[in-house]
Amino acid sequence: MRKVFVLSDHTGLTADAMARALLAQFPGEEHEIVRHPFLDSPEKVEAVVEAISREEAPLVFSSLVDPEARKRLQALCGERFFDFFQDYTPRLERLLGVKARPVTGSLHGIANHGLYQERIRALDYSMIHDDGAVTRNYENADVILVGVSRSGKTPTCLYLALHYGLQTANYPLVDDDLERNELPAALAPYRDKLVGLTIDPVQLQRIRIQRRSSGRYAALEQCQWEVRQAEALFRRHGIPVIDTTAISIEEIAAHITSEILAQPSRGGGPAA
Amino acid sequence: MRKVFVLSDHTGLTADAMARALLAQFPGEEHEIVRHPFLDSPEKVEAVVEAISREEAPLVFSSLVDPEARKRLQALCGERFFDFFQDYTPRLERLLGVKARPVTGSLHGIANHGLYQERIRALDYSMIHDDGAVTRNYENADVILVGVSRSGKTPTCLYLALHYGLQTANYPLVDDDLERNELPAALAPYRDKLVGLTIDPVQLQRIRIQRRSSGRYAALEQCQWEVRQAEALFRRHGIPVIDTTAISIEEIAAHITSEILAQPSRGGGPAA
Repeated sequence: MRKVFVLSDHTGLTADAMARALLAQFPGEEHEIVRHPFLDSPEKVEAVVEAISREEAPLVFSSLVDPEARKRLQALCGERFFDFFQDYTPRLERLLGVKARPVTGSLHGIANHGLYQERIRALDYSMIHDDGAVTRNYENADVILVGVSRSGKTPTCLYLALHYGLQTANYPLVDDDLERNELPAALAPYRDKLVGLTIDPVQLQRIRIQRRSSGRYAALEQCQWEVRQAEALFRRHGIPVIDTTAISIEEIAAHITSEILAQPSRGGGPAA
Repeated sequence: MRKVFVLSDHTGLTADAMARALLAQFPGEEHEIVRHPFLDSPEKVEAVVEAISREEAPLVFSSLVDPEARKRLQALCGERFFDFFQDYTPRLERLLGVKARPVTGSLHGIANHGLYQERIRALDYSMIHDDGAVTRNYENADVILVGVSRSGKTPTCLYLALHYGLQTANYPLVDDDLERNELPAALAPYRDKLVGLTIDPVQLQRIRIQRRSSGRYAALEQCQWEVRQAEALFRRHGIPVIDTTAISIEEIAAHITSEILAQPSRGGGPAA
């Protein structure tokens, strides 16, 4: 199996994501990705160079800033060295008319301290307002996710807080709410902040079985009824809905921020 | 202010991260980044092309796959169009000896269903085992974070679960634990899973004041004492420690996975 090295003097998260995105275009090719972050000394670089030279035609993706390290890797790997910074920086310098000031780790650090604090605050908010535990302070929510148990509310909430700095609450629709076919009293004043999550009942059943193996909770009829009632409620109150069946948390979050929160009728957009 | 467009037929998270990493090298240049994800129809592309043509010399970073869309943008923006896929795919095709099969959104989707489920399971675990609430099942933890209140345990936990699929618990060291200078009974059997978080006491005080404005909890002497005692405990039991004062959650997580979990004495490495 081909070895793929991702090298960075910082977290390497961006270089890693780029490498994976590029390699995803070659679904038949098996490879093993190894990330080496924090290569911030000549000794650490040397150790990785040695590891690379022991492999057969490895690919090397790098966001290293140090010119010496990059020169060594270029000499060692030739075309197999993908130097993300070097490939774009000269062009940006030309376009912007200024010289780059290569700084390690400016992306995933806390250089933007205000925004970082906002993310941490948002996460506190989302932890407290998870699963309808606390319904006070909904006026401070940027988004309130609504849906039946196991439709994806909690992971989406935490992702929106961690990555977009959005104070996101979530509220589970339980049998009582679904029978009444009315917005729960705690939610009614905040219709404009609500986003509904729905899911295919069969998939919902599968997830619930994994969690608790038996009982009404995981019965297909129960899942079907809950989803049908929840969707009717969303329609009746004009609540935007996202179907989480086949998409990931990152995708749900991107849909919410780019399509729902971007609507002019909505209060605040994403922080980042 | 210069407009920077990030275009994608999917979430655009990778292209966005690359654009930010590249632009971070030009700290004096003010710009506004606008991400346009899910550009999956000619109409949506057309609307963005119009928005771009209204701007003065915008930069455009793209992970679009559609050749027609890319051709239009190339013609419109010339060198200001950064086409991440096109720039690297031909070279990868040459190196791998196979043709790319451009697929939209393979990166942030749930194509790898097993790994995705693992992340969701890890998140469930971390929510249940947050803040020492439940100390059962520590034998199933990949990592147990230990530290005083507000040292960064919860955000790091959730990040490790969401992004690395690691079942991460966290346990707060309270006055009783710190006075005894012994590992709490719940942690003692799992010394090999423990990672200590520490923080500068002045920074800790600042964070605590934001949370609850007064009392012993946010007094500087209290913060200093807690941190000193916690660090002594970590030293005494040979627990690896990360100082969270000046680094972000992403950085803390990258240090834990690349430096601590990678140690041969440790049980499991990261899942991704």
